[in-house]
Amino acid sequence: MLMRPIIFVINPNSTQSVTDAFDKALDPLRTTDGPEIQCLTLAEGPSGVERQIDVENVTLPLVRLVQKLESEHGERTGGFVIACFSDPGLYAVREATSRPVMGISESGILTAMTMGQRIGVIAILRGSIRRHGRMFGAMGVTDRVVAEEPLGMTVLELGDPQRTREGLKRAGQKLRDEYLVDVLVLGCAGMADHRDWLQQELDMPVVEPTQAATAMAMGRALLRW
Amino acid sequence: MLMRPIIFVINPNSTQSVTDAFDKALDPLRTTDGPEIQCLTLAEGPSGVERQIDVENVTLPLVRLVQKLESEHGERTGGFVIACFSDPGLYAVREATSRPVMGISESGILTAMTMGQRIGVIAILRGSIRRHGRMFGAMGVTDRVVAEEPLGMTVLELGDPQRTREGLKRAGQKLRDEYLVDVLVLGCAGMADHRDWLQQELDMPVVEPTQAATAMAMGRALLRW
Amino acid sequence: MLMRPIIFVINPNSTQSVTDAFDKALDPLRTTDGPEIQCLTLAEGPSGVERQIDVENVTLPLVRLVQKLESEHGERTGGFVIACFSDPGLYAVREATSRPVMGISESGILTAMTMGQRIGVIAILRGSIRRHGRMFGAMGVTDRVVAEEPLGMTVLELGDPQRTREGLKRAGQKLRDEYLVDVLVLGCAGMADHRDWLQQELDMPVVEPTQAATAMAMGRALLRW
Amino acid sequence: MLMRPIIFVINPNSTQSVTDAFDKALDPLRTTDGPEIQCLTLAEGPSGVERQIDVENVTLPLVRLVQKLESEHGERTGGFVIACFSDPGLYAVREATSRPVMGISESGILTAMTMGQRIGVIAILRGSIRRHGRMFGAMGVTDRVVAEEPLGMTVLELGDPQRTREGLKRAGQKLRDEYLVDVLVLGCAGMADHRDWLQQELDMPVVEPTQAATAMAMGRALLRW
Amino acid sequence: MLMRPIIFVINPNSTQSVTDAFDKALDPLRTTDGPEIQCLTLAEGPSGVERQIDVENVTLPLVRLVQKLESEHGERTGGFVIACFSDPGLYAVREATSRPVMGISESGILTAMTMGQRIGVIAILRGSIRRHGRMFGAMGVTDRVVAEEPLGMTVLELGDPQRTREGLKRAGQKLRDEYLVDVLVLGCAGMADHRDWLQQELDMPVVEPTQAATAMAMGRALLRW
Amino acid sequence: MLMRPIIFVINPNSTQSVTDAFDKALDPLRTTDGPEIQCLTLAEGPSGVERQIDVENVTLPLVRLVQKLESEHGERTGGFVIACFSDPGLYAVREATSRPVMGISESGILTAMTMGQRIGVIAILRGSIRRHGRMFGAMGVTDRVVAEEPLGMTVLELGDPQRTREGLKRAGQKLRDEYLVDVLVLGCAGMADHRDWLQQELDMPVVEPTQAATAMAMGRALLRW
Repeated sequence: MLMRPIIFVINPNSTQSVTDAFDKALDPLRTTDGPEIQCLTLAEGPSGVERQIDVENVTLPLVRLVQKLESEHGERTGGFVIACFSDPGLYAVREATSRPVMGISESGILTAMTMGQRIGVIAILRGSIRRHGRMFGAMGVTDRVVAEEPLGMTVLELGDPQRTREGLKRAGQKLRDEYLVDVLVLGCAGMADHRDWLQQELDMPVVEPTQAATAMAMGRALLRW
Repeated sequence: MLMRPIIFVINPNSTQSVTDAFDKALDPLRTTDGPEIQCLTLAEGPSGVERQIDVENVTLPLVRLVQKLESEHGERTGGFVIACFSDPGLYAVREATSRPVMGISESGILTAMTMGQRIGVIAILRGSIRRHGRMFGAMGVTDRVVAEEPLGMTVLELGDPQRTREGLKRAGQKLRDEYLVDVLVLGCAGMADHRDWLQQELDMPVVEPTQAATAMAMGRALLRW
Repeated sequence: MLMRPIIFVINPNSTQSVTDAFDKALDPLRTTDGPEIQCLTLAEGPSGVERQIDVENVTLPLVRLVQKLESEHGERTGGFVIACFSDPGLYAVREATSRPVMGISESGILTAMTMGQRIGVIAILRGSIRRHGRMFGAMGVTDRVVAEEPLGMTVLELGDPQRTREGLKRAGQKLRDEYLVDVLVLGCAGMADHRDWLQQELDMPVVEPTQAATAMAMGRALLRW
Repeated sequence: MLMRPIIFVINPNSTQSVTDAFDKALDPLRTTDGPEIQCLTLAEGPSGVERQIDVENVTLPLVRLVQKLESEHGERTGGFVIACFSDPGLYAVREATSRPVMGISESGILTAMTMGQRIGVIAILRGSIRRHGRMFGAMGVTDRVVAEEPLGMTVLELGDPQRTREGLKRAGQKLRDEYLVDVLVLGCAGMADHRDWLQQELDMPVVEPTQAATAMAMGRALLRW
Repeated sequence: MLMRPIIFVINPNSTQSVTDAFDKALDPLRTTDGPEIQCLTLAEGPSGVERQIDVENVTLPLVRLVQKLESEHGERTGGFVIACFSDPGLYAVREATSRPVMGISESGILTAMTMGQRIGVIAILRGSIRRHGRMFGAMGVTDRVVAEEPLGMTVLELGDPQRTREGLKRAGQKLRDEYLVDVLVLGCAGMADHRDWLQQELDMPVVEPTQAATAMAMGRALLRW
Repeated sequence: MLMRPIIFVINPNSTQSVTDAFDKALDPLRTTDGPEIQCLTLAEGPSGVERQIDVENVTLPLVRLVQKLESEHGERTGGFVIACFSDPGLYAVREATSRPVMGISESGILTAMTMGQRIGVIAILRGSIRRHGRMFGAMGVTDRVVAEEPLGMTVLELGDPQRTREGLKRAGQKLRDEYLVDVLVLGCAGMADHRDWLQQELDMPVVEPTQAATAMAMGRALLRW
């Protein structure tokens, strides 16, 4: 009998509260004999991945961490999720392991593509939007991502739930009412606490990307391809 | 405690051997307390969905079947997979239920987008390619699907495993060597038996779309969004 | 000498006033020995095609009606127009007859492409926009359709001309002044009465799609290809 | 009662045999009281529009000719067709008259979009393909035009019907069998004689673009918008 | 030793103040033994290229001027810049000379693509936007040009610096704040005086396209390819 | 008087012969009082950037080197060229300096866009093509890059000029004759020696991307924006 595979969900920033939030959000995906889900915080990470240099600074540590985890856990290594909406190091990590690797930006958008035609993304900072634009272009899905709206908040500032919810609601309403989007994607792993609330508040589907990516990784881990 | 959700994987054609093949292929996704996976054959379906009229003929029966299943199973209804690469009735079924609905063409392509940059599809018939082209256009992923190659075989003819494998190998090699694709998608639920073999034979990732769609549906069912 | 071909323009919904409106709008296309234009109302249709299920419900009846008409009229069958902006059953009907079949959404957009660079569409309901988005994607013309603006009115509500004109003017102005579109397309066969008025009111070209599709069908009928 | 509008179909090159060929091909579009169709040859034109300078050389003469025709025929002016696959002067002519102006490249592609998903174009010369590529890009239909194949023949050389048919057949077969196109567009007004033959020979739809453009112009002329 | 190549920067309109403005703006590109930069005004040009007919009217004069310059200057001919944002005659001029030819619209956008992800263009007139849209489509960069905002001023009216700056600031702010563009392109050679001011005023990169095109031409001239 | 700005052209791999080859190729861009061009080899680089991990490994060293150079040279720092066709660290380096930064892949494609409509790229290895595909997608120019053909040679193997030329000629002919490309881009800085030869051999324009990028950087350096 095969051992339960482990999905490693790695927060590339060092803000433990972000890891804690998505760890809790992943609870519904945990079953007795399905893949085990382990959430980790990258020690070397910055408080938030906000600039391009943050992306680059965590890339090699992510590669090393993934290789270390695979070497330690061998056959039980089910897959990896890079839980940052900039998908730092996604292609380098994919090259470094034979197991599936999911980026939450990629998986978040792909999952949203099954839930609506016009996708809106809520970013933390305006400066993230150009980077996301490059990523959506590389994915070839530019036509599906209708608009992106920034909160103007850093990852650390997401620690203030009231201010975060005010921002999410305002941005979500704008995307829904002015850009006519059908589905929202939360553009940062640090918003995981607020998905259920926002979906109810706006009465439209909201994708929490770490959940989306972990779900896709679980499937791949079980299928062993 | 929540009951285990059920994912209903519906073969819109009436060829039971197709259902049997993907039922077996879905075994690795079955866990003790994860979602239950039930495979069904649509009684009203044709032997294979090959022409547009076949797509239309199964659409309303699929809507009715999904509504009946949801009405019978209530809260345990986890989601639905339409296991035909033409994704018949996908949007009508989505409108008819509050539970997630996955089409294997859509999920197959989306999953392939995480496994390679240049995607190749192996279709059963040349006549399917224009329909797939419209679907990929509607999805907004035309730039990622580099080429599609037909086997020139009907769904029933896929029952001959030797001829099918010869066709798959020839088509896959052409896509790999002439179109430089990185990942293949099997363009019919009736090819599920051959994924592992083809991946090994061609030494490149191959997506079995019913597996891909069921995995995505499982995630959504567990997350209850 | 060849007999005059007949173009059958079929209203897939059962609202006779919609059929009457476009029947009158097609008068300028009627000539003594050019194609005859016959307008029909699909008995099985709903009052308006507003949801995806409405699209699916009329598809097979449209296929059967077209086959019956072709069988009754033989060589005189010049072509068919499906006069609903969701182009229901377009590809199934095309497969079911050897004569040309036009959808008014497709023909409306294609005709607009010869009249301006930036196209705006006026939809009846917000819920139609995602369906149109899939259609424009399938057509490969996403880059040309700059924006779509809904009236928030059902097909039946279009029966109120004053409210309809208020909505058309407001939506048209928004598309013209905020989205800088050069040409408008009326996104429902039920707006045919208002094309001339709206074009004059907004001083910009407005495409009535049933007229556009019937004109294209006439050409194909005369050319016999 | 309105007078019959006249559609002026203008051959921008001076090769009268080209004009004669499409004049004959337009016969099926002539009816007793529908629009009159008059075919003209631009005296100032080169023997064929093959290079960009040919396009530019005929642009202002086309503008002047259209203005002269409209001034002479007043209300009877129904519209104009520029019968060259480079659509020379299309936007300048549109600006110079209030009547509809069709380019055969634009109308040919738009018509093909209603007849197949994957479009192939047969060009006269390889050097035309880059110009066509810019035009298809400007139209926003790059994703629909799958491939273009040149004959390697000048407009004058099209005067040899046997050699032309050999070239058309070879190019059409390549587009059909290697590029899997569903519909062909003849990429020069000088191929009008061969549409019926080629369609039968290859058993697939073939668009003759001067016919397509004239049909669209007739509709616009009758509708008076 | 090779002689210094000359770059001829040609203003296709006859407004000398426009030529003077970009001539001054090109000063930083002048070095002792790098390419010489000569600015010319096309005598036959209109006061501004604002309509399509203006584009066509200057095309053949541009071709003739370029051929005359190349014939006069022989080996010293380094390249040509067409200093009008409609890139009139770009492809005809390219065909007419073996030396590099740059259009300022093309070079302006290409240079902006290295300075930001989301590009905004400031046009003189709304009527220019559709023409630019066709050009960006022909270039295949529609996805990068997020929005274009017109000043509603003719080329001659750009002679009023105060009104021009008010317009540039208002348009730039709208593009920056509502469309979230990262980089601006000045959509007329007649705005060259204001680049430095606008960049400072808006605190974002602004591309002056005649500078951008001349720089690219210089490189090509030096490289002799 | 301003001092001559320096353009630093950095080879991210440690193969000195690659640096030497493009250093020589940049000679025509060197003038007495134009920007000075200094070519450097990144000590930390691998022998060739061939895998994604190579890209990541050189990114932070490139950032540090650029910051060190700017700190040492102050006002004289004119700009930077990253002379590797994977454009490693392009966005991080841009963020780290206020001076212009060019990637040779980006500049090579942008320059080719002014020289032909259909672009072909000659890659070193098949494995590079997926990375390039992501980059072209991020740039939004997928529609212009018609095909890419690999040599199947590593950067070190490019040291064999005869084998390299054989490969370049074969790949170029295939791109020219089968994919009908108008212009070629050399997909590695290590091919700089062969541009002139290949252009003559194939009788079509060939872009050497380090030259193209350096030329664009020079313009920006002189303009000081």
